[in-house]
Amino acid sequence: MSDGPTITTIAQRAGVSIASVSRVLNGLPTKAETERRVMSAARELGYVPNSVARSLKSRRSNQLGFAMADIGNPVYLAMIREIQPVLRAAGYRLVLHSTNADTDDEIDVLRGLGERYIDGLIMIPLRVTGEHLKMFAAARAPVVVIGSVPEGTPVDNVRTDSREGVRLAVEHLHGLGRRRIGFVNGPLDTVPGAARAAAYAEAVRALGLPHDPALAEVGDFYRADGARATARLLERAPDVDALLCANDLIALGALDVLRREGRRVPQDVAVAGMDDTDLATLAWPPLTSVSLGSPERGRAAAELLLDRLASRDREPRVVTVEPRLVVRASTAGDDAPGEPPAVDASTVDTPARDVSARDGSAVGETVGDSGREAP
Amino acid sequence: MSDGPTITTIAQRAGVSIASVSRVLNGLPTKAETERRVMSAARELGYVPNSVARSLKSRRSNQLGFAMADIGNPVYLAMIREIQPVLRAAGYRLVLHSTNADTDDEIDVLRGLGERYIDGLIMIPLRVTGEHLKMFAAARAPVVVIGSVPEGTPVDNVRTDSREGVRLAVEHLHGLGRRRIGFVNGPLDTVPGAARAAAYAEAVRALGLPHDPALAEVGDFYRADGARATARLLERAPDVDALLCANDLIALGALDVLRREGRRVPQDVAVAGMDDTDLATLAWPPLTSVSLGSPERGRAAAELLLDRLASRDREPRVVTVEPRLVVRASTAGDDAPGEPPAVDASTVDTPARDVSARDGSAVGETVGDSGREAP
Repeated sequence: MSDGPTITTIAQRAGVSIASVSRVLNGLPTKAETERRVMSAARELGYVPNSVARSLKSRRSNQLGFAMADIGNPVYLAMIREIQPVLRAAGYRLVLHSTNADTDDEIDVLRGLGERYIDGLIMIPLRVTGEHLKMFAAARAPVVVIGSVPEGTPVDNVRTDSREGVRLAVEHLHGLGRRRIGFVNGPLDTVPGAARAAAYAEAVRALGLPHDPALAEVGDFYRADGARATARLLERAPDVDALLCANDLIALGALDVLRREGRRVPQDVAVAGMDDTDLATLAWPPLTSVSLGSPERGRAAAELLLDRLASRDREPRVVTVEPRLVVRASTAGDDAPGEPPAVDASTVDTPARDVSARDGSAVGETVGDSGREAP
Repeated sequence: MSDGPTITTIAQRAGVSIASVSRVLNGLPTKAETERRVMSAARELGYVPNSVARSLKSRRSNQLGFAMADIGNPVYLAMIREIQPVLRAAGYRLVLHSTNADTDDEIDVLRGLGERYIDGLIMIPLRVTGEHLKMFAAARAPVVVIGSVPEGTPVDNVRTDSREGVRLAVEHLHGLGRRRIGFVNGPLDTVPGAARAAAYAEAVRALGLPHDPALAEVGDFYRADGARATARLLERAPDVDALLCANDLIALGALDVLRREGRRVPQDVAVAGMDDTDLATLAWPPLTSVSLGSPERGRAAAELLLDRLASRDREPRVVTVEPRLVVRASTAGDDAPGEPPAVDASTVDTPARDVSARDGSAVGETVGDSGREAP
């Protein structure tokens, strides 16, 4: 099958949004000028409307789904904030499923695709089982997966490089002079937990730090679990001077425990999270966090889904979003011991310093400099 | 129509959960003993299975919906955490709609009930328009509304007494010696905004404080709006010594601005929120907040919906949940100026002090005492 014209290429050619193309191709009301440009671009590119899609039109629910592990984790919220307007502009209502990372529940949602309550689904499973893969292959409506899936899985896929994200954070902490860098992870049988554990070991080794199993601890991806895991780690390795946490919720739990034990952040222990959610600016001190591009991943997934709805037969596509480190006071505010750090990352409407991670080799230096320059 | 036996009365009689009764009456797999007890209780109470409900069985989606304004506001999260397990235990999957408080979107979700994507809906509209009322009356599947609806609206309804909640907070601030108590509200054309504005005026008047319009400001129910509204209020009334905010997100915005302007919380300005969400313990200092019983409201709504699915013909019911004040350091930690207050409400697994609001007259005293006793 060739990768013919798609909703994306038509949008580019017509100079309109993907949502507008979707509306025109699905026969929804659109401005005459927009419709003219879309139809003209579609003709120029040799776009052939999908007859299966058209025949299903009468059974359309005009609803698309997003299935995530835990509606309480703001990383999903950041995605929803991007997904919903893209889909809404294309005439679709978004329905949300919070599956508690339960495989049965996720399979059930995938099975529901056959019942046409939704016309397509964006899913972000924490574990990808054989049953998931079977359902992806058999799905009766388009599925886009955010997260890693095995090579050749027949779904559109949006991923990030969490290994690179872990490396950025560990190098940042090392650049600040920390040598006992602990890691508080989520379950190792999840895709992100396994990837982040391997990345931490690799990053520490690359920096020439000794391998110390006492510095790695595992809990679950929630605040209370993060607190308990941090307490265990501190007991085993009381000389830890930095903690990387596998998500921001875990990092909040770590902050809870460090405050309770009277350890200053970042003077005694620097703390970094992952996902760069709203929680990072809410935390005190504001939390350094690895952005895994959640808004970008959400937007890419929504656009892939609209594209797929318009072109069912094209080959599956993979979009990769690069991580970057967002430095805040929980690691870099070390100039005023005992006082709330002067770095004001919590001010509304003031974006935190973003350190781009595109050029791996330069990042260590940049971040190191920023750390030293912090007011 | 008489208020005959319902899923609730059957559950009480059988000594099993509402979810179990729902499973048995809907023919889902249940333990033999549970089924026996439910059927026996149902017979004793003269329960007559609803034939309309039974005839619809074959068209059931086994999905129930929850439509809220903003998935980013953790007040809804607190409800979802209670709603989902209750519905799941009864064999239903929960689907979520985040409507951005958009009336068209809410009406669209209500209209969707006729298409049977969901078998019933819990909705929490911020504005109840004539169109809402028309759709409630015409809904082709059960609807439970959380929030105030006009007398006689034909839906099951869960409400709270936010007026009482505002009174508790204003009296608490007054009991701490504050006399310039400002109010940062959400839009006045929303049901909660209008109710809270009236309640604030009433509470201030009841305490004999002078009416000063400069002390009341309106934004929207989000953090950035709350920050902007607070900045306007501080400019107009720089001598304000306490701020009540109409929800916790607004209160976070207020904390942002106060920190930026170098005003200490609570020494210079005491701050209280409403809804007592997770954000209240995340904020620094931890936030005093009026709990409007979100978990209890969620649970009550889920149980009303299951009950309604089993007994379509009963009269609509109203459940009211009482507010209470949860005191934390943002109002009551005033003994250590310049230092993080010693009140440790941010420790994991340690519930904050709850001040029950059942007895209005006693509350002012209790809260006042707690405030003075704060370490």
